[in-house]
Amino acid sequence: MDQGEPQEIRHQSARFADGLMLDCGVQLPELVVAYRTYGALNAACSNAILICHALTGDQYVGENHPLTGKPPWWDQVVGPGRPVDTDRYFVICTNVLGGCMGSTGPSDLRPDGRRWGMDFPPITIRDMVRAQKKLVEFLGIDRLFAVVGGSMGGMQVLQWAATYPDHVFAAVPIATAAYHSAQNIAFNEVGRQAVFADPDFNGGQYYDTGRTPAAGLGVARMVAHITYLSEEALNRKFGRRLQDNDLLRQGGLALFGDIFQVESYLQHQGSTFVRRFDANSYLTITRAMDYFDLAAEHGGDLPTAFAGTPTRFCVISFSSDWLFPTAESRAVARALNRAAANVSFVEVETDKGHDAFLLDEPDLHRILAGFLAGCARHAGLAT
Amino acid sequence: MDQGEPQEIRHQSARFADGLMLDCGVQLPELVVAYRTYGALNAACSNAILICHALTGDQYVGENHPLTGKPPWWDQVVGPGRPVDTDRYFVICTNVLGGCMGSTGPSDLRPDGRRWGMDFPPITIRDMVRAQKKLVEFLGIDRLFAVVGGSMGGMQVLQWAATYPDHVFAAVPIATAAYHSAQNIAFNEVGRQAVFADPDFNGGQYYDTGRTPAAGLGVARMVAHITYLSEEALNRKFGRRLQDNDLLRQGGLALFGDIFQVESYLQHQGSTFVRRFDANSYLTITRAMDYFDLAAEHGGDLPTAFAGTPTRFCVISFSSDWLFPTAESRAVARALNRAAANVSFVEVETDKGHDAFLLDEPDLHRILAGFLAGCARHAGLAT
Repeated sequence: MDQGEPQEIRHQSARFADGLMLDCGVQLPELVVAYRTYGALNAACSNAILICHALTGDQYVGENHPLTGKPPWWDQVVGPGRPVDTDRYFVICTNVLGGCMGSTGPSDLRPDGRRWGMDFPPITIRDMVRAQKKLVEFLGIDRLFAVVGGSMGGMQVLQWAATYPDHVFAAVPIATAAYHSAQNIAFNEVGRQAVFADPDFNGGQYYDTGRTPAAGLGVARMVAHITYLSEEALNRKFGRRLQDNDLLRQGGLALFGDIFQVESYLQHQGSTFVRRFDANSYLTITRAMDYFDLAAEHGGDLPTAFAGTPTRFCVISFSSDWLFPTAESRAVARALNRAAANVSFVEVETDKGHDAFLLDEPDLHRILAGFLAGCARHAGLAT
Repeated sequence: MDQGEPQEIRHQSARFADGLMLDCGVQLPELVVAYRTYGALNAACSNAILICHALTGDQYVGENHPLTGKPPWWDQVVGPGRPVDTDRYFVICTNVLGGCMGSTGPSDLRPDGRRWGMDFPPITIRDMVRAQKKLVEFLGIDRLFAVVGGSMGGMQVLQWAATYPDHVFAAVPIATAAYHSAQNIAFNEVGRQAVFADPDFNGGQYYDTGRTPAAGLGVARMVAHITYLSEEALNRKFGRRLQDNDLLRQGGLALFGDIFQVESYLQHQGSTFVRRFDANSYLTITRAMDYFDLAAEHGGDLPTAFAGTPTRFCVISFSSDWLFPTAESRAVARALNRAAANVSFVEVETDKGHDAFLLDEPDLHRILAGFLAGCARHAGLAT
């Protein structure tokens, strides 16, 4: 199982024979949305919360991962008695369009029997959200009580609120922005170039070669992983500690190998990632993030994206996040204010960087639980 | 010339038949230090300024680059009437030990007739400085009037002051630190892994294959280049501007290729770099930076490194530099204060990031010129 290809797993999914018209103008002939749900939908279908995952996440938000066996990726946020309380809410999480855990993506077979690979059409965050909307309707839900997500998940939250304002009661975009910055595009591009540089990438058609561009994708993951952490977190976790304390005493420096602990850690991040993730999906999804620019969809004016919105927003950022700095969340909150939306904005003080949304961050969990409870009262949800 | 191998160029150099004992315990059988000088040494041999270059710099600080034909890398700082005034000072710049522009490095032939490649011994910033010291003595200079450098050049400046305090009248470490941080080690490691992942690297023995690990080294350069800029600078220079403004109007998004201008820029940085730089040198020099920890050489106490120093220091940082943040320069200045050294510390306000030390930054140039003029008066240098 350790070396298993994601597509060998049977994922729960819904199939839409009418496909999906993409922003790029291509019609996907068929759409599959893989998903998981937790908790029970109430009779009024009014207690559903959609969780949107980040770049390398998936639908297994509330159970152990079927490939890695690791705990759920948002274990401290989703579950019985947790901030997103599955005793109270019906929680839905889908694998994003373009992903590799069961939803339509580049590792799928095309109508001609070959795999899409690099021919998979470019997709946008809005395409991902449209696919989720079909799944939500398929589940019999007209209006989501809440949409919650961090990083690229937060982009989806903003896109949901902008595209389907009447179908989202509450929205919680965490550690995100209304557009992808030049620096973030640049980091994504380095990752893509690392994949392209790997000869095992084979122009994206590696599925039948018995090889995957693991080295290139590993490098992409390594550079991305640095951006998820803060300098403080790296100093605290690793500093300049050596992998082998005797190394220098043994008479001399070593040129290569895992000399510093931070190097071993990063290499581990790279090598475990490539076992569970498809390189073409990585390319497709990073590109979708790069394209994200909510204001551009509305004549360059972000408030217009939210004009007259009935949705209640809680915008959350982390003080040490340099990938999606607080300033970008503040810009979202200001645009919502200018749209006369109901919005609260909180910057959580933490030294854990962007990754804080996935970690033990009690302030985040308190804010999230409190906001959802308040919204539940307004929505008339039975407690 | 465009595709020329660096070793095909004849560089001015000094050869030391007694070699160099390295920190790792290996004795280099022979040492070559390539260098350039500008201006004239005065009769007292008291007007020499050593310029130390950064990771990918070289000795051509005051003339067009012999491989690329580009202007000198510190054109606005070194030259007649410039802050480091070649009408007044005798300016020396060496290619660092481990480099690929004529000084002993991994692309050299070993005694057995093969090229060193990955067998080149690991070197330290102190080894680089020891090699420079031999060159300075060879030029008949006992005491340098000043040692000046940014980034890794600044590490050499600090190392010079710590190792040879009586031979450095003034020291200007710019945009640097007394140790390499976990985050910086992490970014270097990503670059190294990108090189290792390139099959053309061939375990470091690519010299006779007719191929170089250009793809891997290009990715390494791309990720490093992002760290040299600030998010503000990237936004100002590129923002989310498209390479081809008609792209989106032409009916659809594109998945790959140069879509955003920042991508083309980075790819250009990568592809031009690999024509002038040796991958094994990149590995060796990044590793030397990672090892740098001046306090560790002195029982973990940085002030001890400078105890009783007669050198005058001017420590300079840039407000938007996140690779070597101001806090790290401030720590150097504090340690110098605790060592009762003569030190001034200036943070230059700029949005240009780490690269500011190489760019049009009038405040930097004024500070540098002023400090050197003041020191020249104290040193009794004729004006």
